[in-house]
Amino acid sequence: MNKKAFYHLSYGVYLCTSWDEGRPVGCVANSAMQITSSPATLAVSLNHDNYTNKCVGDTGYFSVCVLAEDCDPKLIGKFGFFTSREKDKFADFPWKVRGKLPVPDGALCWFACKVIDKMETSTHTVFLGEVMDADILAEGTPMTYAYYHKVLKGKTAANAPTYQAEEKSGGRYVCRICKYEYSGDVPFEQLPDDWVCPVCGAPKSRFEKL
Amino acid sequence: MNKKAFYHLSYGVYLCTSWDEGRPVGCVANSAMQITSSPATLAVSLNHDNYTNKCVGDTGYFSVCVLAEDCDPKLIGKFGFFTSREKDKFADFPWKVRGKLPVPDGALCWFACKVIDKMETSTHTVFLGEVMDADILAEGTPMTYAYYHKVLKGKTAANAPTYQAEEKSGGRYVCRICKYEYSGDVPFEQLPDDWVCPVCGAPKSRFEKL
Repeated sequence: MNKKAFYHLSYGVYLCTSWDEGRPVGCVANSAMQITSSPATLAVSLNHDNYTNKCVGDTGYFSVCVLAEDCDPKLIGKFGFFTSREKDKFADFPWKVRGKLPVPDGALCWFACKVIDKMETSTHTVFLGEVMDADILAEGTPMTYAYYHKVLKGKTAANAPTYQAEEKSGGRYVCRICKYEYSGDVPFEQLPDDWVCPVCGAPKSRFEKL
Repeated sequence: MNKKAFYHLSYGVYLCTSWDEGRPVGCVANSAMQITSSPATLAVSLNHDNYTNKCVGDTGYFSVCVLAEDCDPKLIGKFGFFTSREKDKFADFPWKVRGKLPVPDGALCWFACKVIDKMETSTHTVFLGEVMDADILAEGTPMTYAYYHKVLKGKTAANAPTYQAEEKSGGRYVCRICKYEYSGDVPFEQLPDDWVCPVCGAPKSRFEKL
């Protein structure tokens, strides 16, 4: 099997949010898609290890928020590389309740969904949600997973369906927080002291040389 | 609900193929995504009205073939707007058996999958397939659904999950075969006589004025 074929599948970059006893929770998801148009339903795939998976299962509700190409990269850093089990991911970002679910202000649009079915796999749950409400918050271009990888040089969280172990190899300087691997044209040592990780916002001092 | 939000979800453009008693069948799918990485599984959503849905259910096998931005648009026209129930969609294209499934030569890459689970909805079946084999056939950029709509001005088949009834409105000249609506800069009447529908390849005479 040529595993590079998996890089040719096209995805967006989304936040999936829910509630944990009144506390907003969420994580990055790239595997989300519309399943039926009338009634409108969306499927989203979440790793069993994601705390958001547990919360969606417990509450029966989730949102899918579409991120724009020019969204605050800290949204991806915070929601993609930390866990809601330990951290209030919403603390650093303005957010509102929309369609009864927490939605960060930086989202391009959102879908509020009620779980109507699910399919279990060895590592992920595919939740099928009926879309109760949806709206567009801003103009912009939806970020694709290809854009995230090619333009933002973003990395894949180890519990994403699209994670491939090969991604671990190579590189010179890696962020200890989010594992972002620096690949800019300027040598890392010459970056200014106030330079921060473009993904999670960690300072330059949190990078380690491989 | 703002239905335009659904246009912000990102998809690829795929062919999903299978067998019907030794005869190759297939249809266009845009709702396909990786669910787990080890073992690698893919989910694909197919309308109950798609003959390919029946064949995937009967045989327990399907392929997902990724189309490139510069693929032969007739592939989309033939596989997206006809039915394998009545037509041999593979007749006009060279194809080979790859990973035990029929794959048109024009595909960028392919995944051969064995159905291990499925989830039924009101109009679509979500098949979960374990990827038995996969390979890349050519270099190229995978076509996204956004590219298909914006650059190729492609239309959505009525039984696609992403179909919105609003798409039916407006326009001046529409292909009777695939419902492609002409929107080029040159007035339709001034197009050369050998101009053909960019989606399904139908001659100019098969267009009707709205």
